[in-house]
Amino acid sequence: MSDVEPGGADAPAYRAAGVDLETADRFKRDLRSLVSATHGPRVVGQLGGFGGCFSLADLPEADPVLVVSADGVGTKVLVAQRAGRHDTVGEDLVNHCVDDLLAQGARALLFLDYVGTGRLDPHVARDLVTGVARGCRANAVALLGGETAEMPGLYRDGEYDLAGFIAGIAPHARLERWNRAARAGDVVLGLPSSGLHTNGYTLARRIVLDLEGRELDERVPWGGETWGEALLAVHRSYRDAVGPLLDEPALHGAVHVTGGGFAGNVPRALPPGLGARIDRSAWDPPPIFGHLARAGGVGQEEMARVFNLGIGFCLIVEPAAAEDVSARCAVAGTPAVPIGLVIEGSGVTWG
Amino acid sequence: MSDVEPGGADAPAYRAAGVDLETADRFKRDLRSLVSATHGPRVVGQLGGFGGCFSLADLPEADPVLVVSADGVGTKVLVAQRAGRHDTVGEDLVNHCVDDLLAQGARALLFLDYVGTGRLDPHVARDLVTGVARGCRANAVALLGGETAEMPGLYRDGEYDLAGFIAGIAPHARLERWNRAARAGDVVLGLPSSGLHTNGYTLARRIVLDLEGRELDERVPWGGETWGEALLAVHRSYRDAVGPLLDEPALHGAVHVTGGGFAGNVPRALPPGLGARIDRSAWDPPPIFGHLARAGGVGQEEMARVFNLGIGFCLIVEPAAAEDVSARCAVAGTPAVPIGLVIEGSGVTWG
Repeated sequence: MSDVEPGGADAPAYRAAGVDLETADRFKRDLRSLVSATHGPRVVGQLGGFGGCFSLADLPEADPVLVVSADGVGTKVLVAQRAGRHDTVGEDLVNHCVDDLLAQGARALLFLDYVGTGRLDPHVARDLVTGVARGCRANAVALLGGETAEMPGLYRDGEYDLAGFIAGIAPHARLERWNRAARAGDVVLGLPSSGLHTNGYTLARRIVLDLEGRELDERVPWGGETWGEALLAVHRSYRDAVGPLLDEPALHGAVHVTGGGFAGNVPRALPPGLGARIDRSAWDPPPIFGHLARAGGVGQEEMARVFNLGIGFCLIVEPAAAEDVSARCAVAGTPAVPIGLVIEGSGVTWG
Repeated sequence: MSDVEPGGADAPAYRAAGVDLETADRFKRDLRSLVSATHGPRVVGQLGGFGGCFSLADLPEADPVLVVSADGVGTKVLVAQRAGRHDTVGEDLVNHCVDDLLAQGARALLFLDYVGTGRLDPHVARDLVTGVARGCRANAVALLGGETAEMPGLYRDGEYDLAGFIAGIAPHARLERWNRAARAGDVVLGLPSSGLHTNGYTLARRIVLDLEGRELDERVPWGGETWGEALLAVHRSYRDAVGPLLDEPALHGAVHVTGGGFAGNVPRALPPGLGARIDRSAWDPPPIFGHLARAGGVGQEEMARVFNLGIGFCLIVEPAAAEDVSARCAVAGTPAVPIGLVIEGSGVTWG
């Protein structure tokens, strides 16, 4: 949102070197209205300074802890580029980051993006930031700036990478509680994903686009959507379902099922000495996962490490409260089903 | 520091698709000691959660405002890659971000990095993060995490992009004061840069490497250093000089001379109705700038828009205090010389 590499309308040598400064300046102006639509009363001052400003005065959280995370959307950007659809990966990125913070027990406050690209196509860039801004607005997160860097020697024409940074807040006591609350017997509730989310795209692209030679506008075998639509389905935000539960004492932790799958992520929410047994028959993975396994000859264990298998987020809940928490998630539009138990041990056991 | 794309030691299909998970896992472990060396008492908990945690309890700043910024180092990464020297661009990035916050009147607290790469060379990756960690330590900034994404379809082998996100803090009253403090007659003090910093590398590379056909291990014509050393000189951090001045009432604003040069950046520190007259004879630009202008046939105006011309940071100071502020900068190891005046009008006038 802020700094497109050096700007100015009269720089012939720089333009010859591959950086169009007029386009960059126009792009900056176009972004302001998109960005300011995400701003609430805590955003201080105007864009154009050297940093975005967010007031921390009188936060409702006691003993507040800032929780931060950086992420990208992996090679999902290459699917977007191949499909010519650039206004959804920004939402993917914001939702992914919001979910990372929820898994830590934090509510998201603000976001910044980084777009690295070869030559700046203003339409593509605007679509990208439109997606980021839409994701921010939907999650009540302030888009506080960002960087769009034209680097023609590094990125090929028409290609870009997209990364994001999120900051949120949690009361210290909640972090402490989540760090040690889980105990053997707790129920693992699984919340459905909307598709691959943002993980496993290098493998999925290889299977679908290279091995099978599918086109993105071709229909998937199991339904009416195209491969482009299936592969670009937006990463789900669990804010509406999980946000209101953060202060629920029966909630002992949360898991964002990202890179590494269940095995890589469930243990991050458990104290030492505890693991989880996940019952693979407790839910039906959407058909895309079975298709990828068959078409790519990918074994069950690797499938579960690379992909989310249809469960994008887990809650660790006291057994007595599992039904109530599940109902509250359902009311918020996200059904949550029991998919396993916390057990003595470590890691994830399938059974 | 945290999430290398999906991990696990037994994922043959994923490895065939170009992502080596074992290397990624080993890389993660190596990073922990580098990262934790940057952590002070406000860093809460361990790495491996879904986000880094930084306590905001009892901040010394009254009515604290979080100031955040995202940035990259532009195609300076391509110079590093060509030189095979990967442990300095991380420092560039941190220092650049710290200086952006100083220009806003904020002190930096925490940093996250994003590395996008083709195939993860663990030595290169460790060098990169070593530079980031060294920069964080030198600026007393906590390295709170980051993302290293292997994206073999997007980045060529051996190439990477590097972006960073910084968060810092400022008292609200200081932001308010800086927003309106500058007045006509204020002195603009210039602080020396260490070289090109992180701007203008697309043009500089084109001139030096393409037009002139220089090798990076060739000596520059004006001295003993090589072109590689000259082009990779680390972006200067102005924290030691400027940090102690932030509460000085005579300091009316600050400027980080980045992309856009004086014309693009000085106005960002001035209220509407004010501009600056900069005296180009007040300092001698280091020889690299004259060389680039001559060898590239770049006009004066474009030089001043693309490059910092030897001044990397400016302070806007009450005339009566200019000498004292200048002396305090010198004592901190960074001489500051008067290079211009704030005047009625707008933009930057040369004279």
